[in-house]
Amino acid sequence: MDFNRYMAEKKRLVELKLTSLVPEDNKIPVITEAMRYSLFAGGKRLRPILALMSCELFGGPEEEVLPFACCIEMIHAYSLIHDDLPVMDNDDLRRGKPTNHRVFGEGFAVLAGDALLNQAFETIIGIIINKPSHEYIRAANIICKSAGISGMIGGQCIDLYYEKKSIDVDTLKNMHAKKTGALITASLAVGAVLSGAEEGDIINIMEFGELIGLAFQVADDILDVSGSENKLGKKINKDAEFNKSNFISFYGLEKSEEIAKELVDEAKLKLEGYGSRGRYLCELSDYIITRDE
Amino acid sequence: MDFNRYMAEKKRLVELKLTSLVPEDNKIPVITEAMRYSLFAGGKRLRPILALMSCELFGGPEEEVLPFACCIEMIHAYSLIHDDLPVMDNDDLRRGKPTNHRVFGEGFAVLAGDALLNQAFETIIGIIINKPSHEYIRAANIICKSAGISGMIGGQCIDLYYEKKSIDVDTLKNMHAKKTGALITASLAVGAVLSGAEEGDIINIMEFGELIGLAFQVADDILDVSGSENKLGKKINKDAEFNKSNFISFYGLEKSEEIAKELVDEAKLKLEGYGSRGRYLCELSDYIITRDE
Repeated sequence: MDFNRYMAEKKRLVELKLTSLVPEDNKIPVITEAMRYSLFAGGKRLRPILALMSCELFGGPEEEVLPFACCIEMIHAYSLIHDDLPVMDNDDLRRGKPTNHRVFGEGFAVLAGDALLNQAFETIIGIIINKPSHEYIRAANIICKSAGISGMIGGQCIDLYYEKKSIDVDTLKNMHAKKTGALITASLAVGAVLSGAEEGDIINIMEFGELIGLAFQVADDILDVSGSENKLGKKINKDAEFNKSNFISFYGLEKSEEIAKELVDEAKLKLEGYGSRGRYLCELSDYIITRDE
Repeated sequence: MDFNRYMAEKKRLVELKLTSLVPEDNKIPVITEAMRYSLFAGGKRLRPILALMSCELFGGPEEEVLPFACCIEMIHAYSLIHDDLPVMDNDDLRRGKPTNHRVFGEGFAVLAGDALLNQAFETIIGIIINKPSHEYIRAANIICKSAGISGMIGGQCIDLYYEKKSIDVDTLKNMHAKKTGALITASLAVGAVLSGAEEGDIINIMEFGELIGLAFQVADDILDVSGSENKLGKKINKDAEFNKSNFISFYGLEKSEEIAKELVDEAKLKLEGYGSRGRYLCELSDYIITRDE
């Protein structure tokens, strides 16, 4: 199947599942509307699709990976809502739409974020209570840790702390590894664990995740200077405007493009042992640095 | 043992465990300091102590209940940090100390709340991965649900939604049942479930929780008009100042005191079958409406 069609199909699958995991509910005012607004605001679904691709790579059961993959997407969505708040990044637009707090107010945006994180764990525990398999519990553990202070939240803290301080390139990389990389790596690991992959394969696919996670961030920085506001659905040149260091300010545009390409090449080497089963992950790696949104 | 000494001893136990579950960690800037600031800001530890009392009532293993009890306290602490934010209740003082965002800034206050919620789940999943017992998973499920949109977050949404609208007394009670009652009831349920209590006993102790949870809130409203700012460590007459309905505005002070007393009397009836084992829960019920802080 053609890569674009494959991506569209997996995206549809993820969104269908998300609809059932976070249903409309009018018993409580505003909250599910606010949660669903951001959850269905047109994300690329990169993280859940990575989990499904990892599952395919190791011949696992897609229907078992899908709800965990969707929980990672809920956690991603919550982090964006809180990140966009005026007290954090202060963004008015996300994917071309007004950000959550612009629509529902800051109070409900805080609660919608909280609720999406909680809903992810409610969903995961709900699965485990029905079938307490070791793989399910291990997947839950990977997701928790990747979202917490040693993962995504830790990365956000580094980001916030260095907002008005000069950052060195190693700290910048560490920030991205935690803020973006942790959930990307967790997605791949969850797909592998739930497919019964060998420990060596799990480590290998996580290393692949670290490489494409960093490449994703370098590409984001490149898009911030050379992308189209229309396609990105958000303002460009934000980092320069706020005097924030990124890969471009450290390496320049040309060298940053080289770095992104090298990271993806190194990532693709990790897929060599899997033959044609690694095809979509390979194409996705290229997509990460060639995308325009 | 005297009730006050009993409470002090359990509080010490809870705080010792919390110290080890949320240790200082300087690898990531600010975050653990901000988490611990609110977690150790002098709370009464009512929820974890209720879990321990429920455990004692049913003859369960205290050391197994303790970490779950502490996770509920982490969730309580996160909800207070987010609730105090300028975009929510806008409180400058909590328990006589500057609120989290006044010390660490609003951005880190949002993240410290997120991190405490995540840390609670990391801790719970960490316990389950070591011993995947049905009781542990059930306790995790109770905690998740009580914290989510059908529980605490749902209550906060009702609170926020009706901030500038007139609320009827049934909605007010529903709001409190979710916002405060859900975690209190969950604490008792977790203590019972982890002690292997019978289903009938679990339901009974949850009904007890609903009654003292509501009594707790009525008492809070009474303290808001008749308490001492010094002892409470926060401003009084806040509801009247912001024209917010509460039990006093619906029933007046005298009738509210009667309601609180009736709720506690009804709660104590639930303990009758347990003889002297229910003694501390009984004394705690009285304490809830006679406390001055």
